[in-house]
Amino acid sequence: MTEISKLGEFGLIRHLTEKIKLVNPSSVKGVGDDAAVLDFKDKQVLVTTDLLLEGIHFDLMYVPLKHLGYKAAIVNFSDIYAMNGRPKQITVSLGISKRFTVENLEEIYSGILLACEKYGVDVVGGDTSASLTGLAISITCIGEAEKDKIVYRDGAKENDLICVSGNLGSAYMGLQLLEREKLVFEGQTKNAQPDFSGKEYILERQLKPEARKDIIEKLAEKGIKPTSMMDISDGLSSELMHICKQSNTGCRIYEDKIPINIQAVEMAEEMNFNIVTAALNGGEDYELLFTCSIDDYDKVVAMEDVGIVGHITKPELGLNLVGRNGEEISLKAQGWNSLEETPNP
Amino acid sequence: MTEISKLGEFGLIRHLTEKIKLVNPSSVKGVGDDAAVLDFKDKQVLVTTDLLLEGIHFDLMYVPLKHLGYKAAIVNFSDIYAMNGRPKQITVSLGISKRFTVENLEEIYSGILLACEKYGVDVVGGDTSASLTGLAISITCIGEAEKDKIVYRDGAKENDLICVSGNLGSAYMGLQLLEREKLVFEGQTKNAQPDFSGKEYILERQLKPEARKDIIEKLAEKGIKPTSMMDISDGLSSELMHICKQSNTGCRIYEDKIPINIQAVEMAEEMNFNIVTAALNGGEDYELLFTCSIDDYDKVVAMEDVGIVGHITKPELGLNLVGRNGEEISLKAQGWNSLEETPNP
Repeated sequence: MTEISKLGEFGLIRHLTEKIKLVNPSSVKGVGDDAAVLDFKDKQVLVTTDLLLEGIHFDLMYVPLKHLGYKAAIVNFSDIYAMNGRPKQITVSLGISKRFTVENLEEIYSGILLACEKYGVDVVGGDTSASLTGLAISITCIGEAEKDKIVYRDGAKENDLICVSGNLGSAYMGLQLLEREKLVFEGQTKNAQPDFSGKEYILERQLKPEARKDIIEKLAEKGIKPTSMMDISDGLSSELMHICKQSNTGCRIYEDKIPINIQAVEMAEEMNFNIVTAALNGGEDYELLFTCSIDDYDKVVAMEDVGIVGHITKPELGLNLVGRNGEEISLKAQGWNSLEETPNP
Repeated sequence: MTEISKLGEFGLIRHLTEKIKLVNPSSVKGVGDDAAVLDFKDKQVLVTTDLLLEGIHFDLMYVPLKHLGYKAAIVNFSDIYAMNGRPKQITVSLGISKRFTVENLEEIYSGILLACEKYGVDVVGGDTSASLTGLAISITCIGEAEKDKIVYRDGAKENDLICVSGNLGSAYMGLQLLEREKLVFEGQTKNAQPDFSGKEYILERQLKPEARKDIIEKLAEKGIKPTSMMDISDGLSSELMHICKQSNTGCRIYEDKIPINIQAVEMAEEMNFNIVTAALNGGEDYELLFTCSIDDYDKVVAMEDVGIVGHITKPELGLNLVGRNGEEISLKAQGWNSLEETPNP
């Protein structure tokens, strides 16, 4: 194992970035100067950023470094797709404590580069620095979109369909599983079995999520321009509240329409957990939530891996969930509020 | 004092960003969606990012939070100016531990917004998250430049003049002063006086640096396009090595030409420190280092607050400093290597 101080800051940056090849025409100049140079001609530029901190957003006890790098990139791509854009470049800042080696950082970088390769994104800059304690990863993603194709959060209209890609709650149940196995490993419980078989899907949803590039491409193919869109990082309830608030609408969604994977259901049963709560408030699924005109109904119904979960209403009707037995309850955004959930130091 | 959990994550972001008004035509949509939307028409886009971590890049014992926010923004603007560009937007990510209050964050934000107002930059997005331990600030800056005006690090040519704005070593001596006063406060030394009078300039250079927007504007006015340029964040030696390496040249600079402020000299004498070492390796001055054709000599000489410190040579001559008594010594980039200087946790 190679200590980082052996390479020094500049040596480390060179070591981690020398294999980077730029693939996008808009990436004029990447790593190696004060700033990257991008050229978007007549497209509009999208920018999003995410900060991931050890102990808050990830636990290195069960998250492999390569997966962590992959996920850190993906969550940013997801934000760009959620604007109906295409991610093109990222900058990567790492804060690293003494316990990390060069090989550790190579692992993180290999995950980031794998995600970039898969989604056609260039690494164009960053910052590498020491950290006193944990690992910090800050990624900023730049994307492009045609001006009239960008989808904001504020365009939902009464009677619009509310659509969701994939399924919800899986990433959250994957997290619960990992947390349980961690307790087993630490010897704090004797009951549960450290067994991941038959649970690979929910684990992968938590550890190696994907951004829904495919859905954005299908929407374009079918000529559907959503009226509003977000990615589901905090949970369906929380994201619906953002859209309804910014669009000045209400909404009604149906419990039996919420797409849920069978492994997530089984895991929830095993852990005596309400799967609908996980789907509504679990977060980290990185699926797309979008609204579209009812005129697009036929096209949306024909889309693979997209489900209609409800519709937009007048604002005075509020945000409601219709249960399986027909009762209507008010949606609450419990979300994943990392500021409240800080464990005590 | 208001606990952050009282506002919640979204409430906090709203609270901190509600006063933001966008001033740049290229800022189409700022805070409040998955990504910001920027429109640069036919300009090229510059991107740079910096991650500041408590205990590594700053010590809250002597850095006021407002100054910290100001500096965190400025260091990014400086990178954009160093490309001969103009900073236009930033995204701000904060990782905050439980000991911070809403008022603390307002302080940081007020510093960031003050810098943005002064330099005409828009805050267009960010991420706010809990942190287990210290404060983390990650800022990404987006700037613009005309394609043929961008200045890289690799364009220096033999016989080019090497120029430096302002003076060097002041920020480093300011840091030494603050470190000394911290020891006094902590009772670890009885000798030094906690007295800042007559040292305001070097303190300000450390705590509230400025980016050299004025120099970039003057260069444009005078029709000088540098052949290479960097900002001096790690120290003159380190930055010269970057330029010479990327341009495949050597350089010769003269000790008696290095611009040094009188307060920095006095401080160095008081602390028995070599001020030339501070100027060469101290870092954090955020002055501009640039090379230009000897044909621009008359124009550069006439520029206020810019000094010619040497010239570019053939690569085989190496990087040299000519001392006051004429001896020539090889330049070493000691730089400020934060990865080596991590204190033990």
